[in-house]
Amino acid sequence: MSVITLTTDFGTRDWFVGTMKGVILSINPRAQIVDLSHEISPGDIRAGAFALMAGCAFFPKGTVHVAVVDPGVGSGRRAIAVQTANGFFVGPDNGVLSFALRREKIKSIRQLTNEAFFLKPVGPTFHGRDLFAPVAAHLACRLPIQKLGPPLRDFAQLPWPALRTESDSIIGEVVHVDRFGNLITNIDAAAVRGLGRAAPQVFASGKRLCRVADCYAAVPAGRAVAVAGSTGFVEIAVNRGSAAKQLRLAVGSKIMLRAA
Amino acid sequence: MSVITLTTDFGTRDWFVGTMKGVILSINPRAQIVDLSHEISPGDIRAGAFALMAGCAFFPKGTVHVAVVDPGVGSGRRAIAVQTANGFFVGPDNGVLSFALRREKIKSIRQLTNEAFFLKPVGPTFHGRDLFAPVAAHLACRLPIQKLGPPLRDFAQLPWPALRTESDSIIGEVVHVDRFGNLITNIDAAAVRGLGRAAPQVFASGKRLCRVADCYAAVPAGRAVAVAGSTGFVEIAVNRGSAAKQLRLAVGSKIMLRAA
Amino acid sequence: MSVITLTTDFGTRDWFVGTMKGVILSINPRAQIVDLSHEISPGDIRAGAFALMAGCAFFPKGTVHVAVVDPGVGSGRRAIAVQTANGFFVGPDNGVLSFALRREKIKSIRQLTNEAFFLKPVGPTFHGRDLFAPVAAHLACRLPIQKLGPPLRDFAQLPWPALRTESDSIIGEVVHVDRFGNLITNIDAAAVRGLGRAAPQVFASGKRLCRVADCYAAVPAGRAVAVAGSTGFVEIAVNRGSAAKQLRLAVGSKIMLRAA
Repeated sequence: MSVITLTTDFGTRDWFVGTMKGVILSINPRAQIVDLSHEISPGDIRAGAFALMAGCAFFPKGTVHVAVVDPGVGSGRRAIAVQTANGFFVGPDNGVLSFALRREKIKSIRQLTNEAFFLKPVGPTFHGRDLFAPVAAHLACRLPIQKLGPPLRDFAQLPWPALRTESDSIIGEVVHVDRFGNLITNIDAAAVRGLGRAAPQVFASGKRLCRVADCYAAVPAGRAVAVAGSTGFVEIAVNRGSAAKQLRLAVGSKIMLRAA
Repeated sequence: MSVITLTTDFGTRDWFVGTMKGVILSINPRAQIVDLSHEISPGDIRAGAFALMAGCAFFPKGTVHVAVVDPGVGSGRRAIAVQTANGFFVGPDNGVLSFALRREKIKSIRQLTNEAFFLKPVGPTFHGRDLFAPVAAHLACRLPIQKLGPPLRDFAQLPWPALRTESDSIIGEVVHVDRFGNLITNIDAAAVRGLGRAAPQVFASGKRLCRVADCYAAVPAGRAVAVAGSTGFVEIAVNRGSAAKQLRLAVGSKIMLRAA
Repeated sequence: MSVITLTTDFGTRDWFVGTMKGVILSINPRAQIVDLSHEISPGDIRAGAFALMAGCAFFPKGTVHVAVVDPGVGSGRRAIAVQTANGFFVGPDNGVLSFALRREKIKSIRQLTNEAFFLKPVGPTFHGRDLFAPVAAHLACRLPIQKLGPPLRDFAQLPWPALRTESDSIIGEVVHVDRFGNLITNIDAAAVRGLGRAAPQVFASGKRLCRVADCYAAVPAGRAVAVAGSTGFVEIAVNRGSAAKQLRLAVGSKIMLRAA
């Protein structure tokens, strides 16, 4: 029994994700395939990288994670597989794996060149099906990663948005807006403790939004609150509402936490 | 082999449902996980309760049903697991399990307090992942429910919308609008027989909509018809169209069936 | 281990697909169930037929493909199962299986009449759950197809849109718009070679759109290009954009390829 996760911008309207699963099951009939998300905005490599990072830590050791947000498919960009202490990461070498890999102990990086493990013929438009799905299925069958191609020294990295940390404040930004309209920031929930024992205040564009509290329901319905979110980052929510709509903030909006 | 179903308001854009599955498979690698729906409107406990009730009867004995529509997560609301003659129901004790449990023979109700079966640390925002998923995985591994926490006498109940039944009419209401725009009511399809042998007429706001018939195609395309729906309730449809749009009715709209 | 694919217009908001899976797992607990698409537009038999055709070739031998786009459910239309050299196809006999079956070597066509393999009672509105899901589960358990009902000589066929081929041009049409806004035509990618060695030009409504190239990235971002798509058909794309939006074309739009 082996687990393969899929993170793509393919959506679920078309048969694309289904055919990736067909290819995987043709090679590895016992694979447990789990969708992390297929609703990444078309071509939004950074959003795919964030979703993979946020989700991958909750899977069994040895899980093979496939991420395909691949606007450069068919052009010269490399295809890679990376083995870490926890499992495997497979996808185009355009940064989509890089946020997840920041947290992993890397054991091997391989360029995917061995066509013996591809679906043939490999077309120029759908490497998710022709290349990444079969490679993942073989890895989940315990194929040694060295068989897939030559070693690489490095992989493409997306810049992780930097924090500005001062003695009484941290400035970060919104990196994801979730289904509920919660605004997930790049501010480590653990770092909030450095701002003192009193609940820090949260600001955007110089305006005070709310304070940090323990849970959504710490404030009345319709009121904003910041909490330590499930991804390990500070997240700004509106209890029983949408912070994104109500506060008119989006990915990229700057957020400041200040000691009370 | 054990089946676990998931009913949530988490959507499929984010990695939330995927991480629940990762947690389940980490504990129970052979679980068959089935999505009932993740498109419950955010926080709409009643809609989640209806979806779970409508879907749960079609699963094998012993299935573990997890429902997480949980606007009070992190506050004081209890978390429960319920064993019935047919299987298990796991979720917040806010009524989301209660429509399904109305039809079940209850064997045991337990409050989820034993942290040995949680993902640690349990955060304040995502009990679907930290608490309900691992508990479900353990139940599907045949953990006795008594291990999860102390017995409870009762669980939170949502009021089921009442029917008004007279000798020649039944008044109910729309309780769900499905993907096709079909209007599912709370009127038992079986009760229609009490209105006589001729096909009853269907009214809303005093206006006649249609009659009861055997199938959608009993009327021409574009015309309304009421049928015994697949959920066991009378449902109002427009053949090859959307009743919700065409008749401008929604959840809560009153519907009267009257003997012809 | 046996694979069952599902292609429907049921959406994922409601519990419909989940209950089909519950019925399948009640009969065949080891089935691997794969969603091809549930986002077929309500009642769009042709779109369902196209999705099934596009996806089914990538699954293991013996896979059971279920397609339910069934606006005539409960009326007189027949229900069928078809065995081919590659697997099984199950659905209403309204043409939804016919595009896939054009490419298959047919071995047996059966009308589904043997109620022993249905969920009872069969309702008039949801044969996906009551009839096609249990029949598929039994076929995946290696039930001989002859048990399901009497043989048929033929099944309903949807007309495949015809090409007009001349010495220096091919005229086809858009048959699917995918999630990215790519315009998939009915023009065989292989046929393009007949137009000479130079890259053919692509026209719609007498206006030149683009040329045929090897991959999306063969043109700058925001520019149109035609490529041999992953489905085996010529597809018109806009690199890192939506061809459907930018070129204002849709299903049914005529497309001409002309030798350069």
